[in-house]
This record gives sequence, C-alpha cells and structure tokens, in this order.
Amino acid sequence: MNTISDYKAIIAEHIHQLKIDKKPDELYNPIKYILSLGGKQLRPVLTLFSAEIFGSSYQKAIYAATAIELFHNFSLIHDDIMDDAPLRRGNKTVHEKWSVNTGILSGDAMLILAYQFFENYEPFIFKELAKLFSKTALEVCEGQQLDINFETRNDVQIEEYIKMIDYKTAVLVGAALEMGAIVAQTSKENREMIYDFGRYLGIAYQLQDDYLDAFGDPEIFGKQIGGDILENKKTYLYIKALELSNVDQEQELRTWFSDNESEENKKITAVKNIFEDTKATEKIQTLIQKYTDKSLKILDAMQIEEIYKSELRQFSLDLMNRVV
Amino acid sequence: MNTISDYKAIIAEHIHQLKIDKKPDELYNPIKYILSLGGKQLRPVLTLFSAEIFGSSYQKAIYAATAIELFHNFSLIHDDIMDDAPLRRGNKTVHEKWSVNTGILSGDAMLILAYQFFENYEPFIFKELAKLFSKTALEVCEGQQLDINFETRNDVQIEEYIKMIDYKTAVLVGAALEMGAIVAQTSKENREMIYDFGRYLGIAYQLQDDYLDAFGDPEIFGKQIGGDILENKKTYLYIKALELSNVDQEQELRTWFSDNESEENKKITAVKNIFEDTKATEKIQTLIQKYTDKSLKILDAMQIEEIYKSELRQFSLDLMNRVV
Repeated sequence: MNTISDYKAIIAEHIHQLKIDKKPDELYNPIKYILSLGGKQLRPVLTLFSAEIFGSSYQKAIYAATAIELFHNFSLIHDDIMDDAPLRRGNKTVHEKWSVNTGILSGDAMLILAYQFFENYEPFIFKELAKLFSKTALEVCEGQQLDINFETRNDVQIEEYIKMIDYKTAVLVGAALEMGAIVAQTSKENREMIYDFGRYLGIAYQLQDDYLDAFGDPEIFGKQIGGDILENKKTYLYIKALELSNVDQEQELRTWFSDNESEENKKITAVKNIFEDTKATEKIQTLIQKYTDKSLKILDAMQIEEIYKSELRQFSLDLMNRVV
Repeated sequence: MNTISDYKAIIAEHIHQLKIDKKPDELYNPIKYILSLGGKQLRPVLTLFSAEIFGSSYQKAIYAATAIELFHNFSLIHDDIMDDAPLRRGNKTVHEKWSVNTGILSGDAMLILAYQFFENYEPFIFKELAKLFSKTALEVCEGQQLDINFETRNDVQIEEYIKMIDYKTAVLVGAALEMGAIVAQTSKENREMIYDFGRYLGIAYQLQDDYLDAFGDPEIFGKQIGGDILENKKTYLYIKALELSNVDQEQELRTWFSDNESEENKKITAVKNIFEDTKATEKIQTLIQKYTDKSLKILDAMQIEEIYKSELRQFSLDLMNRVV
C-alpha cells in the first residue's frame, strides 16, 4: 500500500512536471505560475488514494486528480480577484502579478483544461467523471455566491453558513474521493459513502480553518492571525458568538464588525475575547468533532480493507489536529 | 425540410423557454438576463440544421445547440468585462448592471452549465461533444488573448489577425455545425468538412463585421458606426491600410490611432478616408469573397442532399451581403 504521504510526493512531482505546451504565453504562463506555488494538494492525493482503496492502480487516477487540482486553482484565481486578495501561498496573486483581465481569462482556460484531463478515460468513465465534476463545480460557484451575499447581510444563520462552506469547500473534497472510486469502477454504494465521508471531513476541515484563522499560533500558522476578523468575515465563530451573546456583547461585536478604522491588534484581541466569553470557541470545537465523527462513522461502515480505513482515520485526525 | 428560418424561430423559442431553476438568484439571474437579450443565435441554428442534414431529428441536437449558445453568452459576459463595454445588444452589460464580480462568477457558472447540457447524450456522443467543445472553448480563450495582445502591439500582421478572428469567432461556428454532425453520428469525413465549411464562413463573417463597423449604413446598422476606429482596434482594415499606405498616410493613420482625444466624427471620417485611399476597403471585400468561396467549395464537395446545399449556400450569401 502507498501511504497518503507517498501520494503527496507523487502528486507534487506530477504537478511540478506537468507540461502545458500551449500558446500564447500570456494566457498560459499565469496557469503555470499558480501551479508552481504548490499548496497542500490534499484533493488530488485523496483521488489517488481512493482509486487504490477500490482496487485500481493510482496511475489510472492521475488525470482525474490533475483535473481536480486544476479546478481548485482556477477557483482560487477567480476568488482572489473577487476578494481583492494581494497574496496567495505567500506570493502575488495572478491578478496582482498581471491584471484582472489576465486573471479572468487564464482562469477560464484553466477550468476548460481541467475538463480536458478527463478525455484520457473511456467514454463511460469520462461521462461519470465530467458529470460529477460539473455538478460540483457549479456548487462551488453557488458557495462562493453565498459567501459574497453574506458580506452585506447581518442575519446569516448557522445552517446557512454550514451550507456555504459545504458548497464552497466540502463538496470538492467529496468529489475528489468519489472520482477515485469512479476510475476504479466500484459500486454506487461505495461511491456515495466515500463522497459523504469526504464531504463531512471537508466541513470539519473548513471549520478548523476558521478556528485557526483566529486562534492559531502566529509562530506556526504562517499568515496573519485574525485576518477574517479584520475583513469582518461572518464565520461560524462570529455567527455563533452573536447567537450566544448578551445585549452588551452583541452590540460590541456588531460595532467591531461595522468598523475598518480601528487599530488592528486591538480589534483582533477584543473580538477574540468575545468569541471566548460567549463560548463560541467551545462550540466550534464541538462542531468540528461532530463532523469528524460523522465522517469516521461512514468510514467504519465501509466495506474496504482495514489498512485503508486506518490510514484515512489517521489522515482525518491529523487534519483536525493540524496547526497550519 | 425545416429551413434555417424555421430553426431560428425554434431556437429563439427554446432559449426563451429555458428553465434554469437554481439558487442563489444572485448567481443565476445574470445568466437569465443575458439569455433574455436574444441576439442572432446563429450558432445553435447551425447545430440543428447540421443534425438534420446528416439524418438526425433536430430535437436530438437541441441540447448541443443550447450548450453552444450558453458558451457564446458566457464568452460575451467575460469579454465585456475585459473590454469595459457598457452595452450588449442595446442593454446594460452584466458587469454594468450588477458588478464585475457578478460577471466573473455568473460567467463561470454559465460555462459549467453549458457542459451539463451534453449530459443528455449517451457516453460515446457525450465524450465526442465535450472534447470538441473543450478544444474550441480553449481556442476562443486563446483568440481573446491574441486580441488583447494586439492592443499594445504596433506590428500586427495580417496572418496574425486572421488567426485571431479564426480562434475568437470562426472555430465556434465550425464546432456548432460539427456538433450537429456528431449528434447525427455521421462519418469523420462529413464532420471535418462541415467543420471547415463553418470555419471559413466564420472568418468571412467576422471580416464582414469589421467592414460594417466602419462602413455600415448608420440608419440600418443599429450601433454607432466607427466604434472600432474610436477604440483604435487593429482590425483587418487598419493593418491592411498600414501595409498599403505611403509614408504620409502611414504617419497620419498611426497618429489617429495613438489618440483618444480628438473629435469623434472628425477622426472616423479621416480614418475611413485612409482606408479607402489605400484600397484597404477593396482588399477586405476581396478577402471576404475568398473565404466565402472556400467555404462554398467545401459545401459543393459534400455528399449531402442538394436541397441542404442550396439552403446553406443561400445562408452564406445572406450573411456576406448582410447590412447588420
């Protein structure tokens, strides 16, 4: 068995070696650039591992894994334009390095390139992969739209927030795993279970991301702690804190989140205090645990070899205990 | 036989009736909006007609035709952002009516929706359609990039210009026709011939568009005459005029095209005079005729019923003699 760690090395090398020999350079260089920045590459790793779980060689799944990683990077290029983000993986975003127009057009080309990687499969598998891909890609767009809608709303509910991160992040984790299952041509039941496992894990992953953004260790986290707070992002912590706050806390929190002028550290400290005082921080930990448990329960019920279950279980726990 | 005119009515009605029952509204309303603006819908009409030519019912081709029209509209939404265009089909562009971010994200969703329409076909046809679609869509992006590159170049050659309009416009006309042929499962040879017919016709069509932009009848044309000249666009007329101009004409033309300040009508009149004096206007007519002839020659050689050839011949001539 290859471990997930083996697959991390395999995918990193594969993406690094990827040849995109097309012209004009102005269109394709930004694509090569964002891929060269690396990133966690969790999704394609899951595709390869899933293919192995269900009895296929990982080599057969490498095109699907590449498509998933290209799609993920396409969505980062376009999201970074919408969020006006200057940095991605510690480097300039595509629209900062080139221009917004370059970001739009190179992103479009990258989405189409992703579909082309499925052409390496025979028609039946090709169709199954492309269908799942399109459905998921549309959900990612819908999740991004919900996220944008939240910016100008003051009444976002927890269930809406969970739906947003489900669509924006989790469905792609589920799809990455299901694509490995499709390539291996396993049963419909296995496909659905591995998809649900990934989707719950994806929700837990994103909640942990939100938690680390506020409470990560600045020495280890690698980016500024409190970025979401400074952007007045309505994450789980904010919505839950509002829900649990007394009148004074609510007013204080709303005041901080209608403000962009105050001294950064002061704002971050004050908001984090409210998150802790209202016990929103405890609630998010409970919820992360709940979604991790849901995913592990599905894993337990699956008819796959114990050695794979054990590897995925460890992977899930590592994700949830991560500090970066 | 249905005539092309019949298919125009069928497609207009079909696009008008198209149900996109998805949420959130902020993502899908812009898609419904741009489709509601209509347009010539030439490409989907060609898909339906091509399916009939090769022995299929047009109904079977309606999903492919819809995908082509969605893709065309996706490319308009993103191109209008890049060109900073305020109006499309006499109405506000999507990014003007909503925002650039809405234009980016709704455009992305529209591209993915286009792929989903192919899911109505069985795996083998699905794969053939999606492959042609991705190849063509990527070429359209490459054409758009070449167009952007030309804005800041002063040495664009005629062959480069033809390649740009081939990719940006003509390949999609070819693909629209080939998709009908794919749905009808005709021979590879027929597929290639109808594609080439459409591609040459598409080049002639775009050259005619460039000509009308400068020399159309303002009473009939429906948009401002000389728009390309005011934007300093390096169309065939400009490149050819430079090639054929004497020293004085070249200097005058370059001066006009490095300028955005002068009185609009004065600039348009002066540039059009140079286009005529250098005989660039005659050259473009000759080239339009050349590409129309190339496409009609292929049509003549095809093994299809005479009644279809005659309908396509008339359609081509109407396109080339059009005033709008």
